[in-house]
Amino acid sequence: MSVTGAAGFLAAGATAGLKTSGRPDLALVVNSGPDHVAAAVFTSNRVKAAPVLWSQQVMADGRLQAVVLNSGGANACTGPAGFADTHETAELVAATLSGRGLTVGAVDVAVCSTGLIGERLPMARLRSGIAAVAEQLSPTGGAAAASAIMTTDTVAKEARYSDEGWSVGGMAKGAGMLAPGLATMLVVLTTDAVVRPDLLQAQLADACRRSFDRVDSDGCMSTNDTVILMSSGASGVQPAPVDFQAALEETCSDLAHQLLADAEGAAHEIAITVAHAATEEDAVEVGRAVARSNLFKCAVFGGDPNWGRVLAAIGTTGAAYEPDRLDVSFNGVQVCRDGQIGDSRDLVDLSARAVQVLIDLRAGPRTATIWTNDLTYDYVRENAEYAT
Amino acid sequence: MSVTGAAGFLAAGATAGLKTSGRPDLALVVNSGPDHVAAAVFTSNRVKAAPVLWSQQVMADGRLQAVVLNSGGANACTGPAGFADTHETAELVAATLSGRGLTVGAVDVAVCSTGLIGERLPMARLRSGIAAVAEQLSPTGGAAAASAIMTTDTVAKEARYSDEGWSVGGMAKGAGMLAPGLATMLVVLTTDAVVRPDLLQAQLADACRRSFDRVDSDGCMSTNDTVILMSSGASGVQPAPVDFQAALEETCSDLAHQLLADAEGAAHEIAITVAHAATEEDAVEVGRAVARSNLFKCAVFGGDPNWGRVLAAIGTTGAAYEPDRLDVSFNGVQVCRDGQIGDSRDLVDLSARAVQVLIDLRAGPRTATIWTNDLTYDYVRENAEYAT
Repeated sequence: MSVTGAAGFLAAGATAGLKTSGRPDLALVVNSGPDHVAAAVFTSNRVKAAPVLWSQQVMADGRLQAVVLNSGGANACTGPAGFADTHETAELVAATLSGRGLTVGAVDVAVCSTGLIGERLPMARLRSGIAAVAEQLSPTGGAAAASAIMTTDTVAKEARYSDEGWSVGGMAKGAGMLAPGLATMLVVLTTDAVVRPDLLQAQLADACRRSFDRVDSDGCMSTNDTVILMSSGASGVQPAPVDFQAALEETCSDLAHQLLADAEGAAHEIAITVAHAATEEDAVEVGRAVARSNLFKCAVFGGDPNWGRVLAAIGTTGAAYEPDRLDVSFNGVQVCRDGQIGDSRDLVDLSARAVQVLIDLRAGPRTATIWTNDLTYDYVRENAEYAT
Repeated sequence: MSVTGAAGFLAAGATAGLKTSGRPDLALVVNSGPDHVAAAVFTSNRVKAAPVLWSQQVMADGRLQAVVLNSGGANACTGPAGFADTHETAELVAATLSGRGLTVGAVDVAVCSTGLIGERLPMARLRSGIAAVAEQLSPTGGAAAASAIMTTDTVAKEARYSDEGWSVGGMAKGAGMLAPGLATMLVVLTTDAVVRPDLLQAQLADACRRSFDRVDSDGCMSTNDTVILMSSGASGVQPAPVDFQAALEETCSDLAHQLLADAEGAAHEIAITVAHAATEEDAVEVGRAVARSNLFKCAVFGGDPNWGRVLAAIGTTGAAYEPDRLDVSFNGVQVCRDGQIGDSRDLVDLSARAVQVLIDLRAGPRTATIWTNDLTYDYVRENAEYAT
């Protein structure tokens, strides 16, 4: 169902020829209204791709009519010429949609790109691709759009949440460079709920903070990350803000876990839950420190519940805890108790893909979970060979 | 020459049976004086091994007569019992040396341990090992001591610096978990120079900051890192503080590069030089961010001068720079100019083991170099299999 899982949206995917593989590489999502309210969250990387710089500008008024997304090239670190390419892309989409009876200005078209950094997009192909993808716009085009934004993803990521009379739909791409603020990912969310424009940006930011920002696959932060939410209001239903917030968070978490499950070369999905932290920030800091320890990640790949490496990572943080009051469990076996040897590590079975690490800081009431992957031969291979 | 490269020191290595491999695993370094001035730098990890907690205490008075070091077990996360083991080790060394005509108290014996975290040391073996290693103390025992502290190291690391009439000697171990503050490493430095006790701690800390702290192999920080410097004053020569500082720094840098060259599974040594930074801190922050990017490290392993990943890592820092004024060179080829595409990446040859990455921030007068390794299949294998 993807982005067309909410009423009032058209979508399509097409092959513009940006990818050497010949797979679909261009997606378009159009909000037919009646509302055109939108919010967006962008990468916190200071090196931002041209489409991010463009989309930040057009999002300033909280209004959007369409999003065009390409895989096969990130259009990052391409200078003023790359920015001109993004601008032209938005103008072309606006002109093409206007030719089909809609009234769309380039300033209401967001642009997202993903792929290699530091290479110009082949604009001749992109231009003809835009005409082709607009031809195929349809209220059931969500799946085609979700396929067209894949890069090293092995599966398309789609989500849908529905409540009484209103829905949230979404699609995502991303398979590496997954880290907070955000991941290497593009996400488009749609809803037919009637939303409060004054709340939407904060609601989206909050949902991202508790979902995508807690996926930390390899600690690397991309130049192109974008999450866009558009509301058509087509259902005519205005849910309570708290209900809408819950729906957003559930949709984002669903997509975040799909990203994690498809992370490049991973053999395990690891949930690192930090319990009894003094603050949520402490819990997140500790979880992230463990998630970024290459030694810990290699140990999980090797089937080794190496709690010493967990403690070594916790020790690098400023969180509130006493080293001799730390407990660590792997898949329910408390291998570290009071900061020292606990139950036998031989009791732990790490053969399944899902791994649960529970860290008890015994310092307060807060809990948070950070999701990560193990570090594998395949991760190295995919990222050593990506550009070649 | 190692730690016996300076006059006034005895050293030895022996096999206590702590390692299942049967290789030497116990080293002893004794300062015969006349001076017994010492300084030390310890891991900044909050989870500290028992020998670190012990050695911090005995170093409080700036005086040391001996250091005993074992491989085959880190004695970290072993609780009060593990601390008692360390204390007993120091007492045994003091008693054994006192039985050989020296007057040594346990409070003048530092203890260092390296190996797996979370396991008790086999104290029966260690006790008989201490008697054996003391038997072999000799003014030429430095090489045997350097061999006995190896874990996954493939070569022993020794260094010597000599000036007119005085010398600095040193040994180090470490092959993974190399990161600032410090690495997984034990270092013992010796000198026969007459030093100023009031300056020694600051001089050692400064030398570490500019050498070991700038090696960031895998971003992970150990629980056991210790650098100990002992002065015997046996040369009778008191060099100018600036000359002694230079000798210390050169010896530390020598050992740091040996650690890097022997890092677990690495195929490349990468020097990341950050030039024209506003401050030295900015230069170090940027270098470290790049050194910790798994995607960058995989790219180097794959022979790919992926400057986009360098920029993505720079973008995560708070250093002073403009994204569109960043220059990046790989082995002298400026593949990124003004934050965008520069010379062809095809001109870059990354087949040699040494790789030079030059990042020009164009923001000020400061420069720093961070040393790291690539991320390889062998790194994953060694760290997935280490405990098993």
